[in-house]
Amino acid sequence: MPAYTKLDHQRFLLEEVHLLRDLFTFDRFKHLNWDESWMMVEAAKQLADRDMYPHYREMDTSNVHYDGHGHVKTHPQLKTIIRNGAEQGWISGSAKLEHGGMQLPIMLFNTAHHTFHSANNGAVGYMGLTAGSAALINSFGSKEQHDLFVPKMYAGQWQGTMALTEPQAGSSLSDITTTAYPIGDGYYNIKGQKIFISGGQHEACENFIHLTLARIEGAPAGTKGISLFIIPKYWPVADRSLQPNDVFCAGDFQKLGQRAYATTHLVFGDNHACKGWLVGEPNKGLSYMFQMMNEARISVGMGAAAIAQAAYLASLEYAQERTQGRVPSEKDPLKAPTPIINHADVQRMLLTQKAIVEGGLALTMECNRQFDLEHAASGDEKQDAWLLLEILTPIVKAWCSEQANRSASLAIQVYGGYGYTMDFPAQQYYRDLKIFTLYEGTTGIQSLDLLGRKVSMEKGKALQVLSAHIMKTIQQASDDDVLNTYATQLYDEVQRIGKVLQHLQQFVPGDVDRYLSDATVFMDMMGTTVVAWQWLKQAVAARASIQQGNFAQQTKNFYEGIIHTMKFFFRYELPHAEACSRTLMNPEYLTNLKDNKLF
Amino acid sequence: MPAYTKLDHQRFLLEEVHLLRDLFTFDRFKHLNWDESWMMVEAAKQLADRDMYPHYREMDTSNVHYDGHGHVKTHPQLKTIIRNGAEQGWISGSAKLEHGGMQLPIMLFNTAHHTFHSANNGAVGYMGLTAGSAALINSFGSKEQHDLFVPKMYAGQWQGTMALTEPQAGSSLSDITTTAYPIGDGYYNIKGQKIFISGGQHEACENFIHLTLARIEGAPAGTKGISLFIIPKYWPVADRSLQPNDVFCAGDFQKLGQRAYATTHLVFGDNHACKGWLVGEPNKGLSYMFQMMNEARISVGMGAAAIAQAAYLASLEYAQERTQGRVPSEKDPLKAPTPIINHADVQRMLLTQKAIVEGGLALTMECNRQFDLEHAASGDEKQDAWLLLEILTPIVKAWCSEQANRSASLAIQVYGGYGYTMDFPAQQYYRDLKIFTLYEGTTGIQSLDLLGRKVSMEKGKALQVLSAHIMKTIQQASDDDVLNTYATQLYDEVQRIGKVLQHLQQFVPGDVDRYLSDATVFMDMMGTTVVAWQWLKQAVAARASIQQGNFAQQTKNFYEGIIHTMKFFFRYELPHAEACSRTLMNPEYLTNLKDNKLF
Repeated sequence: MPAYTKLDHQRFLLEEVHLLRDLFTFDRFKHLNWDESWMMVEAAKQLADRDMYPHYREMDTSNVHYDGHGHVKTHPQLKTIIRNGAEQGWISGSAKLEHGGMQLPIMLFNTAHHTFHSANNGAVGYMGLTAGSAALINSFGSKEQHDLFVPKMYAGQWQGTMALTEPQAGSSLSDITTTAYPIGDGYYNIKGQKIFISGGQHEACENFIHLTLARIEGAPAGTKGISLFIIPKYWPVADRSLQPNDVFCAGDFQKLGQRAYATTHLVFGDNHACKGWLVGEPNKGLSYMFQMMNEARISVGMGAAAIAQAAYLASLEYAQERTQGRVPSEKDPLKAPTPIINHADVQRMLLTQKAIVEGGLALTMECNRQFDLEHAASGDEKQDAWLLLEILTPIVKAWCSEQANRSASLAIQVYGGYGYTMDFPAQQYYRDLKIFTLYEGTTGIQSLDLLGRKVSMEKGKALQVLSAHIMKTIQQASDDDVLNTYATQLYDEVQRIGKVLQHLQQFVPGDVDRYLSDATVFMDMMGTTVVAWQWLKQAVAARASIQQGNFAQQTKNFYEGIIHTMKFFFRYELPHAEACSRTLMNPEYLTNLKDNKLF
Repeated sequence: MPAYTKLDHQRFLLEEVHLLRDLFTFDRFKHLNWDESWMMVEAAKQLADRDMYPHYREMDTSNVHYDGHGHVKTHPQLKTIIRNGAEQGWISGSAKLEHGGMQLPIMLFNTAHHTFHSANNGAVGYMGLTAGSAALINSFGSKEQHDLFVPKMYAGQWQGTMALTEPQAGSSLSDITTTAYPIGDGYYNIKGQKIFISGGQHEACENFIHLTLARIEGAPAGTKGISLFIIPKYWPVADRSLQPNDVFCAGDFQKLGQRAYATTHLVFGDNHACKGWLVGEPNKGLSYMFQMMNEARISVGMGAAAIAQAAYLASLEYAQERTQGRVPSEKDPLKAPTPIINHADVQRMLLTQKAIVEGGLALTMECNRQFDLEHAASGDEKQDAWLLLEILTPIVKAWCSEQANRSASLAIQVYGGYGYTMDFPAQQYYRDLKIFTLYEGTTGIQSLDLLGRKVSMEKGKALQVLSAHIMKTIQQASDDDVLNTYATQLYDEVQRIGKVLQHLQQFVPGDVDRYLSDATVFMDMMGTTVVAWQWLKQAVAARASIQQGNFAQQTKNFYEGIIHTMKFFFRYELPHAEACSRTLMNPEYLTNLKDNKLF
């Protein structure tokens, strides 16, 4: 089987960079240990090898489709994937023991999901959605709600979804109009439509539990009047049978990629008989939903990096096998052609991919670690973890998804013309990835979140915590004679971000539109700098093992490869962060055209 | 019909920036005038409106496919497109009168092809290929060869192809093994296989004239032993009937995009009866083929910009119609949602696209103009035009194709989730475009050509000519108080390129591999700078018309839009050229890994 993920890099991150072992000292995770955890990662890989990867290409071509009568046809393998994934704990795994989960660190849970995304991204999304929507019920629902829905969801029998987007509102959740009319006891009649609902209907599950945002009749306008409801396709009733609810799948969306992943259009209450159940308090739905959205944003960033990793590894294998041409200094046309990996430009394309996919995974792991600390630690440690996670979440989502697309494009390029053909997998990775810059909030939305909310939250404390973490890595790297020049370079970039923010903040009092107008360029700069930090952090760990002669788990080549890729990122990618700063400091304001005639 | 091309911008380039009218003073073009030329551009648009654009999406979904028996099934509209295109002169148009053409400037011919690429890029390629291969016969073949093949090609009845790539050789033409065994009178028995042959077999033409590179038995190894042959699928014989040649289409390639464009696998001489006809002298085939390849490279750059333009205009229209959310300063959720074009980030994405597609077309037109001058002028003017075209050809191919992909990705992003669905055209443009960085020489190959050959050709004269042209524009812009700061910025970039080359040239004597190792980064820097020049050149022309109050052809808004987009390019894109220079000047050498274990 071709390589599609790298357990050695996963292990390096868990064991040497982001220190999973630390977590076992907390009460929340004291039931776990390293060996058991690592066995779970390996078991996930075996599951992916068996159930997921071999069906990846086929599930693309025999794509999901609507049958015209409320049902979406899916590949038969999907049921196997979900059931066996559930059985191994990859839906319930990170939930608390009391909720029927294994109370795993999200670091560990997401390591498995990273493998699954590399193996078959169109299939694993179903499990992630169910995990996230069950977690919403656990966090904000009643015990009754939990008991009625969550066990079946954790068994992979019932599918959870997040139903937010409406046709007229798109990204603007304040404009949703799905309405809930109270009928007593926390139940409501629901009326409205939702689009782009992943997993909203398919053949692998028996019931669909839609965690849905709607407005209770008479609620305040905007985001302050949104509530969260459980709307099952079938209501479980006392005799354990399922009673149909007025939830209709009116169609699906045929897409560029992720063709194994059903994207549906749902209609609630077309026959005035759609019963929903309020979760938590009225009008707090959006803040509840942000729990799931934030976790989903990390997953999307991680998923993008994971898919790009599969594309990278496929192109790496091709580059080692395919011979073509000679290096420029070889003038003898009778010399045998060389494997294309020996061409500098192919190395550049492969190292760019490695820098993106492994840098992206390192950043995801940083987020996962902070997530776990937020949930397991207390006091300042908990507070810091929360703040760091808040500021990193839009970055991991936007940077990974944007760069993963670029990475997969380079994978095609390594294949040459063959990469454009359906005979090779590169084009599928490329198609699958394009949605990642869109769903769970577009890059533009993430960028507004970063510059508009996260940078200034708690009086800038999140940014301060991030800077402190980066400075710690810079300090460690400064003490190492191989790494200290990179430490200096990163230090300069961090200083530059401060200057850019100082420049932008002049607009905050009177002109918030201008302040936010280049949020995406700011995101680009910030993302590149943060991933440079993650590379330096990895290099610090690699240097430590090299200096200690610690090659028990990883080879010396592995560590040298980490350091080499860090250097590559600093040479080829980081200069573009400075270029972004020049754009951001430029005094011209060009994206406030009132007159579309200039286009 | 939605807008897919902009006649106003085409006219601006022809009339005010690249001055088509100049050409009519040369003997070669004295039979033409402006009015007639512009009427031809408009007629081409009408043809595209009628025959091409309406079938673009359908020709994608009912894609070409091999029938298993030597034939490739194509869409019935293809024949209409080719025949009517031929009738209006869009295959023969740029050929000399004596060759049966209209002796049009390539500026004019390619303006029409630009429209066709925007309208239906999978269909127009067939015409371009026939035009290019007929031109090869005209330039290097005998009158007998011309008379036997070219008239039918110009009528759109016979398809011309360029048959270069072989499975084992890929981009490395020195390794081709298709062999020609002399049988007398300039005829040869041909044996070999070619892959990725666009238009190599389809239903819209009766015969296929394969301009094929092969090695005459016993020829020198490498590129010095390659000859050019005409290998028709059917040999025309004295009674005007067609006699089958031993040319077999063994399959096609199913592709990510350009699904209307047949990509075939050809087998010559499987039954030892494939007769080819030598064009020109033996062993000069590669230099002959470069005529076609160079023209094709300009066309590919232009085609990429044209497709991205169609994607841009589609997303622009969507952004004007689709309402969603409010600008950040608008806090009232009861205010009506705004058209998304009013969001700064959407404007940034639209302006980026405009900057790429119109900058790319301007650069293409510069190449076209130099092509025409090379063919029409004499003495130093001819020599300069040749040199400028030589250095610009790899740039227009690589920059436009790379940036057009980025541009179409932004078009999807403007659509949001809808852009990812098959219901909207953005995904098709995105798929179609990915091949443009690959065919006619990958970006890596173009970059090696630029840095390895063009920069140093004729003792650096091509680069000097380019610099002189850029300096002329800088001089003009310096005299204008709106433009002079941009002139200064461009001047700095040109100086920086000089410094980068000085840095790189230290490696030329002993380490050509290192000299060329970052050729693609050099291309990125150079391409961005050259397109900045084209934007400044357009802005100079726009300023002139504004100052003269000359709004006879274009509105003031049009000119202001040009100047605005120039500013945008200088603010958002040009800083990345400087970032590339920092990469290029970095003393580390990271893409010479001998040990693949570091990946």
